[in-house]
Amino acid sequence: MSSSNPIDFYFDFSSPYGYFAAEGLEDVVAPYNRTIRWHPILIGVAMKETGAVPLAGVPVKGDYLLYDCARLARFMDIPWTLPGDFPISTANAARAFYVIDDVDPDQAKDFARAVYRTYFGEGKNIQGVEAVADIADSVGADRGHVLDAIKTPEAKTRLKDEIDTSIERGVFGSPFVIVDDEQFWGSDRFWMIKRWLRSGGW
Amino acid sequence: MSSSNPIDFYFDFSSPYGYFAAEGLEDVVAPYNRTIRWHPILIGVAMKETGAVPLAGVPVKGDYLLYDCARLARFMDIPWTLPGDFPISTANAARAFYVIDDVDPDQAKDFARAVYRTYFGEGKNIQGVEAVADIADSVGADRGHVLDAIKTPEAKTRLKDEIDTSIERGVFGSPFVIVDDEQFWGSDRFWMIKRWLRSGGW
Repeated sequence: MSSSNPIDFYFDFSSPYGYFAAEGLEDVVAPYNRTIRWHPILIGVAMKETGAVPLAGVPVKGDYLLYDCARLARFMDIPWTLPGDFPISTANAARAFYVIDDVDPDQAKDFARAVYRTYFGEGKNIQGVEAVADIADSVGADRGHVLDAIKTPEAKTRLKDEIDTSIERGVFGSPFVIVDDEQFWGSDRFWMIKRWLRSGGW
Repeated sequence: MSSSNPIDFYFDFSSPYGYFAAEGLEDVVAPYNRTIRWHPILIGVAMKETGAVPLAGVPVKGDYLLYDCARLARFMDIPWTLPGDFPISTANAARAFYVIDDVDPDQAKDFARAVYRTYFGEGKNIQGVEAVADIADSVGADRGHVLDAIKTPEAKTRLKDEIDTSIERGVFGSPFVIVDDEQFWGSDRFWMIKRWLRSGGW
C-alpha cells in the first residue's frame, strides 16, 4: 500500500513534546513526498476524557519529564527554557495559526515553529493576542489582519471544529500524528513513522 | 566521564513495555562493556504515588497503547499476545527472579525473559507459584528450590527492599533504566541510553 494523502500532525502549543515534534517531523517525512497538515489544538478536552493531567502537576514523574525535555533539547541541539508560565491556554496562538494557514500554509508552519521557539526556546509567555501578533509579524504575516481575525467568531469556530475532529479521530495527547488512519502518539515514535512510510504500512 | 558501574534495569513483569525493554536492552548496552543488573519490582506502589493508573483502564489512550504494543512487537519481530488476565500481580515471578539471581545472575535474566515471553508472547497467566516454578525449570533452575524459596520471609523481604530502593531512586514506571544516576523511562529511550554510554554523559 502506498499513498499520497497528507499526513496530519496534531499538537498543542503548550506541549513540550509538541515542540520537539514540530522541530523534527518535516525532516522525517521529507524523503517520502508526503505533505504534512499541521493542526494546533487545545488538548485539555481530550486529556480530561482520558483522566490525564498536565505533566507539571504530577509528583516525581512531572519532574522527570521536565528534565527529559531539557535533555532531549540538548540532544537535538535546540534551545530549551521552561517557561515561567506553564502550562497556559494557547487558544490565541492556535486561532492565529489557522488565520495564517488560510493565506499561506508554509508561513503558518513557520509561525508555529516560531511560537514554540518563543515559548519553550526562550521561555516567554505566548498567551496574549499581542504576543501572538508579534510572532506572526516576525514570520512575515500581516500583523493587523491576524489581530483582527483571531477575534472573530469564524476563528473561534474553526479551532473548535479542529478540536472536535481531533477527538473523533482518537487524538488524546500531543504530539499526535496520523498517517493513512494509522496513529502515532509522541515525539519518540518518529522511527515508527519513518518505517511505516518506507514500507507502506506493515 | 566514563564508568564501569553496573546499569540498573527496573521493570514489572506485568508491564508490556518492560517486555520490550527486556528483549532489547542487553543488545543496546553490549558494545559498552557495562553489566546490567535486572530488578523486577511491583510498580503499583510508585504508580499510586504519581496518580497513574494501569493503561488497560484508561479510555481511548489504553486502546491506543495496547495497539501500539502489538505494532511494536511486529516491528521488533517478537511474539505478542495480550494476556486474558491483565494486569496481574507479579510478586511470585519477581521473588523467584531474586531466588535464581542469588545462584546464577545470567540464568535469572533467562528466567525473566521467559516469564515475559510466556505472559506477553503466549498470553498465558504467570501469577501462580506453579506457573513460575515451571518457567524456572524451563531455563534450568532447580524447580523445587524455587518453589520452596519464594514462600520464605527472606524472599518477601528481598522484593520489598528492591521496591523501596526503586522508589528512593525515583523509579515511577516500567521500564526504568538508571545509568550513573541518570534516569531513562520507557523502552523508547534506548537511543538516548546508547548516546549517553557512547559520550560518557552530556
